[in-house]
Amino acid sequence: MTMDYELTITTFLERARDLFSHKEIVTALPDGSTHRYTYGDAYERICQLAHALDEYGMAPGDRSGVMAVNHFRHYELYFGPSCSERSIHMVNHRLPEHHLVTIINEAADRLLFVDPQFVDVLEPIADDLETVEQYVVLGDADDVPETSLSPVTDYESFIAGYDTDYDWPDVDEETESALCYTSGTTGLPKGVQYTHRGQFLHTMMHSHVDVFAVSESDVVMPVVPMFHVNGWGFPYTTTFTGAKIVLPGQHTDPDDLIPIIQDEEVTIAAAVPTVWMEVDRIIEESDDLDPGVLNTLHDVLIGGSSPPESLIRKYDEVYEAPISQGYGMTEASPHLANTLVTTEVQQLSESEQDRLRMKAGVPAPGVQIRLRDEDGEPVPHDGETPGEVQARAPWLAGEYYERPDATEASFTDDGWFMSGDVATIDEYGYIDVVDRLDDVIKSGGEWISSIELENALIGHDGVAEATVIGVPHEKWQERPVAYVVPDDGLTVETLREYLLASFPKWWLPDRFEFVDEVPKTTTGKFDKKELVEAFESEYGSLPVEE
Amino acid sequence: MTMDYELTITTFLERARDLFSHKEIVTALPDGSTHRYTYGDAYERICQLAHALDEYGMAPGDRSGVMAVNHFRHYELYFGPSCSERSIHMVNHRLPEHHLVTIINEAADRLLFVDPQFVDVLEPIADDLETVEQYVVLGDADDVPETSLSPVTDYESFIAGYDTDYDWPDVDEETESALCYTSGTTGLPKGVQYTHRGQFLHTMMHSHVDVFAVSESDVVMPVVPMFHVNGWGFPYTTTFTGAKIVLPGQHTDPDDLIPIIQDEEVTIAAAVPTVWMEVDRIIEESDDLDPGVLNTLHDVLIGGSSPPESLIRKYDEVYEAPISQGYGMTEASPHLANTLVTTEVQQLSESEQDRLRMKAGVPAPGVQIRLRDEDGEPVPHDGETPGEVQARAPWLAGEYYERPDATEASFTDDGWFMSGDVATIDEYGYIDVVDRLDDVIKSGGEWISSIELENALIGHDGVAEATVIGVPHEKWQERPVAYVVPDDGLTVETLREYLLASFPKWWLPDRFEFVDEVPKTTTGKFDKKELVEAFESEYGSLPVEE
Repeated sequence: MTMDYELTITTFLERARDLFSHKEIVTALPDGSTHRYTYGDAYERICQLAHALDEYGMAPGDRSGVMAVNHFRHYELYFGPSCSERSIHMVNHRLPEHHLVTIINEAADRLLFVDPQFVDVLEPIADDLETVEQYVVLGDADDVPETSLSPVTDYESFIAGYDTDYDWPDVDEETESALCYTSGTTGLPKGVQYTHRGQFLHTMMHSHVDVFAVSESDVVMPVVPMFHVNGWGFPYTTTFTGAKIVLPGQHTDPDDLIPIIQDEEVTIAAAVPTVWMEVDRIIEESDDLDPGVLNTLHDVLIGGSSPPESLIRKYDEVYEAPISQGYGMTEASPHLANTLVTTEVQQLSESEQDRLRMKAGVPAPGVQIRLRDEDGEPVPHDGETPGEVQARAPWLAGEYYERPDATEASFTDDGWFMSGDVATIDEYGYIDVVDRLDDVIKSGGEWISSIELENALIGHDGVAEATVIGVPHEKWQERPVAYVVPDDGLTVETLREYLLASFPKWWLPDRFEFVDEVPKTTTGKFDKKELVEAFESEYGSLPVEE
Repeated sequence: MTMDYELTITTFLERARDLFSHKEIVTALPDGSTHRYTYGDAYERICQLAHALDEYGMAPGDRSGVMAVNHFRHYELYFGPSCSERSIHMVNHRLPEHHLVTIINEAADRLLFVDPQFVDVLEPIADDLETVEQYVVLGDADDVPETSLSPVTDYESFIAGYDTDYDWPDVDEETESALCYTSGTTGLPKGVQYTHRGQFLHTMMHSHVDVFAVSESDVVMPVVPMFHVNGWGFPYTTTFTGAKIVLPGQHTDPDDLIPIIQDEEVTIAAAVPTVWMEVDRIIEESDDLDPGVLNTLHDVLIGGSSPPESLIRKYDEVYEAPISQGYGMTEASPHLANTLVTTEVQQLSESEQDRLRMKAGVPAPGVQIRLRDEDGEPVPHDGETPGEVQARAPWLAGEYYERPDATEASFTDDGWFMSGDVATIDEYGYIDVVDRLDDVIKSGGEWISSIELENALIGHDGVAEATVIGVPHEKWQERPVAYVVPDDGLTVETLREYLLASFPKWWLPDRFEFVDEVPKTTTGKFDKKELVEAFESEYGSLPVEE
């Protein structure tokens, strides 16, 4: 049979040491200068970090938290703890304070590595952190600010003086390598434990020629934060393939990104669509920048939400920097699907191809996707019938950390992850995410996408803001109601006719409420929950005749 | 933690069914016509095959043998048995009869699938096959020749009438999927058991952009036989990625391959170097074929031995069909290393790059390679010092089937496979296989490559044939002796001076024996063993003073 070979993150590190020790890791520092070193240098410091964890007395499985932007010390923390059989917990500094307290306590982080600029995020909650024994500021002694955190040291002192080689332990591939929390729209964040095996397989898939094809010859810049969905897996993929990696640090404003792309000749960059829209606007408005400024990019990766068709066209034709999409989530490390221009798709017209490229893509090799209706029954892959995206992959979580209730609610009896996303799948295998299950409107056994209606309304010239919610209905169970901030002169009849051009009659909202403003959550999203509660307390449910 | 997800070959099949059911599998038939069907068609027949195995009473783990060239029915046999939890044993019809008897009995094949043209290979040994219950000729009833084999049926009858869908079992990833024998230069063939897990990982690696980058948009033609080293893994890789596959059947002569490459627009083709030399010769000598005839090929894959530099140049410049190399062996499924033109290598001169491309390449992602000397001590990776190639990979065998002695001799105590190949590794990570360990000459603790001396001698204008053996030496343990078939007028002194231009003095053979002919084995290789035995019986060992 096959030899006993554990799939581990350590093999990434060793491959970079053996074959790519001369390749660069570049970080944009806060002061505008650049930190440059090699995979060989990083390896030595990662070994020092592992020794420091030994010396501190971190046992196998013990966790350290890290609250940081994308830079070389954060990169080192992706490896030092995991490869020495501990785990690293990436903490999103943007979470509300009570969430931070909950997750750091739940993870039982003993050490907390923190960027100087995030020290003041921790200070107000430090008294509530039950397990943290030591704060380590990510910098040298000069970078440690005046702080109430205690005890506190700096990263450079923490790792200084240790041996630059390390005898990595044999780690069972099912061991936790990292812990990452996902924030749903409701409830407390839920922990996802990554394993060495899962990360190995995710990383191998990432470089598949029909996924992101990350090669040794690439220069990869993850703008997506390393504290979020595992940095899209790029810290691992670049290391395994020996690609040059460019970390933008605090310089994630589109203004700052353009010169970095130019100077470092970035070939692959990953960010949410708004970043690329803003980059486009800046180039448009600039007198100095010409469209060739982005043409080292051969893959502009977008995730999180769908790019507008006009953006896809423009990046293709003007910037010669083609956009492709990835679809995933924290639970999936995060990758599940991506744009794949198959031989069949190549036969389609340009506009049909663009339409497909706006979708989430086809399942990556190793991923199985199915659509299920409310009763768990199969939904046809006809490009029209929506169903919940359920997935299996060897890098997908099988549970939420210490949350049997959430686990029970999110995994089927036959072992599939219930993503909560509602999508269609077309004849080309393309997944089109149309809504979140929580936001979909269940009308008489059929589903209506609140997001599609919302996007259509927002696209109308006379509409300033709009959102669509589902409200209880005596006959149909749920029906859509639209809240619209209208410009002068807009009528409900205009909106109804406008929507009828794109949607079946039964999709049309039963009511259009014209309001001065749509209430928003603290993160700026439409607060649908508040609207639903307000509607129900005022009207109860919609009567049959309406 | 990560979900329970077994890595299986079944997922390849299901992916092709779900996403690529319209893509083609093309076979060149013996009569010159072409058989075309789709992955969707193949899936249905593979389901029928699995039902037929059920009906026959094949238990989990039971093996079927197959003796066939590359065609669609052979392709179906790569999946039907494995995915239904049985195993398939690919049999090399070129083995000597007593080897065939040994391995078919050892594998305990219950069914034997055989091409019509190989029926007469089996007839003489059928009485000695202890476990075979049923012969199945790969064709329909008309294809079954008059034969003494009994009982005999045809493949189309065997699978006819069964359901075209199948409820595939959950298979543990460590389950044997296939069995393949490797023939060393000495002794009986040794069995290598492939597992579902190993094949999954090998297949994922195969499509890595820095390995063979096999994409959905490729048209792949494995000329390398599917009964040998697992068809280089291509039957699995094409299925997982949805690439069109072209199977040349019996048409593996370079004359036949050229029109197939043209007609099917093949992009990746894999064969031994002699095939590509012959293709070159045919195009050169033809009045009808122009150099553009090969330019659909973007990857001409070579394995088994090193291509001459002139061939690499010519395929680059004249045919625009670049050659790259793979290095592997049956035990490794087979892939271990390949040409990788890194950013560093791109900086070298063209001739330096060509020199690297003649080497076996760099370890593929997931592969670890080390060099060890006779005492098991590390050998520097300086491009000069030879050592035995030892390897680890998740798809590498951990043992030989039912051969504890061979296993003991080929795996180190710390779990590395001892390949028996002697190589150097240079600063770019490129492995250069210089000899087989059995053929290397151990002189005073240093190694002399018999193959390098031999190739140099053969390259001399005055030499018709030459081989170099190691003979016992009273002081140096072993020393080289050359056997040369000289043209008129050649002197030993000429040869010594010629070799001194390329090798250190201590590499030079102690004796040059001029002979009329070098003895050869039945497969046409120089019979070094006979020469060594003859030398020893005549001279014993070389004395100290010589």
